[in-house]
Amino acid sequence: MNKIRGILIGRMQPPHKGHIEVIKRILEEVDEVIIGIGSAQQSHDLNDPFTAGERIMMLTHALVENNIDPSRYYIIPMEDINFNAIWVAYVKMMTPPFKKVYSGNPLVKQLFAEEEYEVYSPPLYNRKEYSGREIRKRMLKENNWENLVCPSTVKIINEIKGVERIKNLSQKEINEV
Amino acid sequence: MNKIRGILIGRMQPPHKGHIEVIKRILEEVDEVIIGIGSAQQSHDLNDPFTAGERIMMLTHALVENNIDPSRYYIIPMEDINFNAIWVAYVKMMTPPFKKVYSGNPLVKQLFAEEEYEVYSPPLYNRKEYSGREIRKRMLKENNWENLVCPSTVKIINEIKGVERIKNLSQKEINEV
Amino acid sequence: MNKIRGILIGRMQPPHKGHIEVIKRILEEVDEVIIGIGSAQQSHDLNDPFTAGERIMMLTHALVENNIDPSRYYIIPMEDINFNAIWVAYVKMMTPPFKKVYSGNPLVKQLFAEEEYEVYSPPLYNRKEYSGREIRKRMLKENNWENLVCPSTVKIINEIKGVERIKNLSQKEINEV
Amino acid sequence: MNKIRGILIGRMQPPHKGHIEVIKRILEEVDEVIIGIGSAQQSHDLNDPFTAGERIMMLTHALVENNIDPSRYYIIPMEDINFNAIWVAYVKMMTPPFKKVYSGNPLVKQLFAEEEYEVYSPPLYNRKEYSGREIRKRMLKENNWENLVCPSTVKIINEIKGVERIKNLSQKEINEV
Amino acid sequence: MNKIRGILIGRMQPPHKGHIEVIKRILEEVDEVIIGIGSAQQSHDLNDPFTAGERIMMLTHALVENNIDPSRYYIIPMEDINFNAIWVAYVKMMTPPFKKVYSGNPLVKQLFAEEEYEVYSPPLYNRKEYSGREIRKRMLKENNWENLVCPSTVKIINEIKGVERIKNLSQKEINEV
Amino acid sequence: MNKIRGILIGRMQPPHKGHIEVIKRILEEVDEVIIGIGSAQQSHDLNDPFTAGERIMMLTHALVENNIDPSRYYIIPMEDINFNAIWVAYVKMMTPPFKKVYSGNPLVKQLFAEEEYEVYSPPLYNRKEYSGREIRKRMLKENNWENLVCPSTVKIINEIKGVERIKNLSQKEINEV
Repeated sequence: MNKIRGILIGRMQPPHKGHIEVIKRILEEVDEVIIGIGSAQQSHDLNDPFTAGERIMMLTHALVENNIDPSRYYIIPMEDINFNAIWVAYVKMMTPPFKKVYSGNPLVKQLFAEEEYEVYSPPLYNRKEYSGREIRKRMLKENNWENLVCPSTVKIINEIKGVERIKNLSQKEINEV
Repeated sequence: MNKIRGILIGRMQPPHKGHIEVIKRILEEVDEVIIGIGSAQQSHDLNDPFTAGERIMMLTHALVENNIDPSRYYIIPMEDINFNAIWVAYVKMMTPPFKKVYSGNPLVKQLFAEEEYEVYSPPLYNRKEYSGREIRKRMLKENNWENLVCPSTVKIINEIKGVERIKNLSQKEINEV
Repeated sequence: MNKIRGILIGRMQPPHKGHIEVIKRILEEVDEVIIGIGSAQQSHDLNDPFTAGERIMMLTHALVENNIDPSRYYIIPMEDINFNAIWVAYVKMMTPPFKKVYSGNPLVKQLFAEEEYEVYSPPLYNRKEYSGREIRKRMLKENNWENLVCPSTVKIINEIKGVERIKNLSQKEINEV
Repeated sequence: MNKIRGILIGRMQPPHKGHIEVIKRILEEVDEVIIGIGSAQQSHDLNDPFTAGERIMMLTHALVENNIDPSRYYIIPMEDINFNAIWVAYVKMMTPPFKKVYSGNPLVKQLFAEEEYEVYSPPLYNRKEYSGREIRKRMLKENNWENLVCPSTVKIINEIKGVERIKNLSQKEINEV
Repeated sequence: MNKIRGILIGRMQPPHKGHIEVIKRILEEVDEVIIGIGSAQQSHDLNDPFTAGERIMMLTHALVENNIDPSRYYIIPMEDINFNAIWVAYVKMMTPPFKKVYSGNPLVKQLFAEEEYEVYSPPLYNRKEYSGREIRKRMLKENNWENLVCPSTVKIINEIKGVERIKNLSQKEINEV
Repeated sequence: MNKIRGILIGRMQPPHKGHIEVIKRILEEVDEVIIGIGSAQQSHDLNDPFTAGERIMMLTHALVENNIDPSRYYIIPMEDINFNAIWVAYVKMMTPPFKKVYSGNPLVKQLFAEEEYEVYSPPLYNRKEYSGREIRKRMLKENNWENLVCPSTVKIINEIKGVERIKNLSQKEINEV
C-alpha cells in the first residue's frame, strides 16, 4: 500500500484525448493516479453540459479503451466547496492519500502548495485542440469534434443526445417570465 | 383529482399584466395551474427587489382582482437549487403532480424534456412592455410603470415603499470598507 | 391591504379536520390567515410521510371542500432552517406581513415573542383524535383513519398510495449494507 | 454501452467479505454494478469511522484481490442529501444510467420504487457476522475482526491506525467545556 | 508575532467560572489563547439557549472583569461543520495560527491529533459544579446558579431574560399541529 | 451593560490605516464598536486573498498598536448569507445588541434601515489611498503598499507570504483541464 499516488483534477466537460495523454504520462511518474472529476454538481450548462455520472462513464470507458490498467487509477467526483481554505481538506477526505498534485490552475496549485504538497504542472500535450472549451464550441457549431475525444466517448455522447442538449441550452430565452 | 395540471415558473419581480394574461391562457388548456415563484430566496437586489412573501401577496391579489377562480391555481415559492440535474425533482417535491410545463427558458425546457414532461412555450402576449426588467427600469427612472402591473400591485408596491427600495439599492457604494 | 393577518405553522402530516377547525376559528379573528406547511423538505419518513406538494394539494382541496373563502388564506411551504435565531426572519421573507402568531410549540412561541409578535395558542379542538401522529399510527395499523381527515384528503392519499408508502417505510431493514 | 447496470449503496464502514459476496452475485445478474459509498461526508464517528477516501481505497483493493473485473464496476461516493424526495435524482446525477437497485433499506427501496426502478433485496450471505456494526464492535473490544474483512482491508486499517481511531473516539468526554 | 498560541473550544452555554479558570491556566503555558465559541449557530434550545452574540458578550465582559489582558486572547465564534474530516481546516481558516489544542472532547482530540497538533486535556478545575449543564439545570429549577458564573454574566443573563427563555422553551408542546 | 453600540462591517482585505481611522471616529460616538469581518469564508482569491483568521490577527494587532482600548471593541467574523432578507437576523445572532450601523454599502444600509436601525455612512478619511483594492493592486505590481497599512500588518503579511500568494493567484491558467 505504500504506493506513490498523484492526483489530477479537472471538470472533464467532456473527457478528451488530452486527458488520456496526461493520465498516461502521470502514470509514468506515480504508482496510482487519482482522477478527480471537478464541479461534480454542475450539469446542463453551456460550460458544464454533462452530469458527474455521464463524465465518470465516459472517462471509465475511455481509459479501458486505451488499455490503461484499471487497478492503477481511482475516478472520484468532487463537488465545488465555496470555501477555498477548506478545499484541500475536502479533497483529502474524498481520496486515498497522495503526495503529488498535477494542476495548471493557479488557485489549486497555491492551495496545495500551502499544505506542503508537491505541485506540478500537467505534462505537455496539444492543448489548443484537446480542450473542453474547444470541443463544446465545435459541438455547438456542428464542426468536427469527434476526433478530439475517444471513440467510446463519441458513442456515449450520441446515446445521451449530448450535442442536442448543448444546442438546446444555447437558445435565446423567450423573454423573462 | 385526475386533473390536468400545468406549471408556470417565473421570478415575478414583480408580477405584471403579462403574467395574468399567460395564466388566463394556460387555464384554457389545463384544469389547474401551478404558479412557481422562482428564486424565492432572492430579494433586495436590483434584479430581484422583492421578497417571496411580497411577490406571493402581489400575485394573489392580482389574480383575485382579475376574477380568476382561486380553486384553479396554486402559488408556490421555489428556491434556487444550484444543482441543475436535481432541480426537476425539487420542483416535483414542492408541487401537486403536473404534466405540462410552460417556460421560455431553455434550461428549464431542457431539464423537464429530459424527464419526459410535455414542454410548451408560454402563450404570446406583449412581451416588450410586460416584462419585469422593463418595469424595474422604469421604477428606477421614475417613468410610468404603474400601467404595466395590476392596480392592487401598485398599491402593495407603494405600501412597502418598493420604488424607494430600488432607488436606494442603485446608489453607488462609498468606497470599499 | 391594511389587513390583519395571522399565521399558523404546522407540518400537516397529513392535514386533518382539526386543522380545518383551527383555521376557521382563526379566520374569525383575522382578515387573512397564512398557513405555513412546516418541514417542507421532509417526506418519506414515518413521521413525515408526505411531500410538501402532496400536503399543499391535500390542504387546498380540504379548504375548498369546507367552503373557506380562498381569497382569505395563503398556503406557503417552509423548509426547516437549522439556525433558530434566524428562523423568524426566514418566515417573514416567505410571507405577507402578519401580526399574530398561532402556535402550540414553545420554541415557535418564544422566537416570535422575542421579535415582538402577538403570540397565541391555537383555538381548542379535539386534539386527541385530530392529530397527525394518531392518524399516521392508524394508517400503519389499518385502523380507521379516514374519518379524521376530509373526504378529499382520503381520495388523494389513496391516489398517491400513501398508506402503502407508510407501511413500506415501517419495514425492518435487512441488515446494514 | 447498452449495458444492464445495477446499483448497490452502502456506507461500507468498513467494506467486508459480505460486500464482496454481494457484488459477485449481482455481477451474475447485470453487466456492470455501480457501488455507491453512502454517507460519504461522514467519518471519525463510532458508527462511521472511516473517510470516503479510505473506504474507496479499501473497497478498490478488496475487489482487485478478489479478481473481480475492474471494467465491470464503478465506485462512487455519495453524500447524504437530507431531502428524501430529491435523493434519487442526486444518485442519478452521480452515476451512469442503471435499472436495478439492490437494497435492504426500506427507505431506499420505497424511493426508487416510486420512480419506477426495479428494486431487489441484496442476495443472501452470512449477515450476522459480515456486518459493519459487528466489525466495529469487535475492533473496539479487541476481538478478532480481521477474518471478516479482506486481507488488503486489514493492511489499510492498520496503516491508517483505524482501530486506534475507534478506541480514541469511544473515550468518555472529560466534562462539557 | 512568533507567538505560541493555544486554542480552547467550547459551546459556553453559558460561560462560567470554570472557563475563566481554564483560560487563566492556559495563559500560563502560551502567549495567546484563541477561545472558540462552538456551535455558534445554535440558540433557543434547552441545551443551547444563548446566541453566539450573547455568549461573546458574556465571555468578553467576564474576562475583563477578571483582569485578563485583552491583548492575549481572541474570541471567535465557530459554526458546526457536519463533515468531521473538514472541521480542523475550518477552525484553521477562522483563527490565527496555533500549535496547542486544549480539549476534553475525544472527537476534537482525535481530529487535531491526526493533523499533528499537540493535544492536551484542559487544566483541572471543579468540573462538577462549573458545568454548563449544571447551570442550565439550576436555571430551570430556580436553584442558585448565579455563583457559578461571573457577576457580569448574571447581569447580562438577567437583561436578556435568559432564565425566562429557558423556562419557556421547557414547556410541553400543546399537541402537534 | 446599557452601552450604546455601533457596528462596522467590512471585508478588510487587508485591514488598513483607513479602518483604524474610522474605528477611532466611531468610538467617539458610541461606547463599544462591533467590527464585523465580512465574507469570512472567502480567501485565496485576488479580491479576497486572506483568511478570516489572518484578517482577525492583523486587525487585532493593528488596534493594539494604535492603543485603542481592547475592552471597547468586538471583532467577529461573518460569513456571507446568500439570502439578503435574512442577513440582518444573522448579524444580530452573531453579535451583542447594537443600535447604530456604519456602512457605505447601499444594500447593507437598506437592509438595516428596513429593520429600523440607525444607519450612518462611515466617517470620512482618505478613501482613495486607504482602500483594500488599492493595496491589493500595489501588492501585485510591487509598488509601495506598506505605508497604507499598520506596521504590525506588514509584519504579518510578510510572515504568511501574503504578497507571494497574491502573485501566484494572478498567474494565467495553463489551459483548462
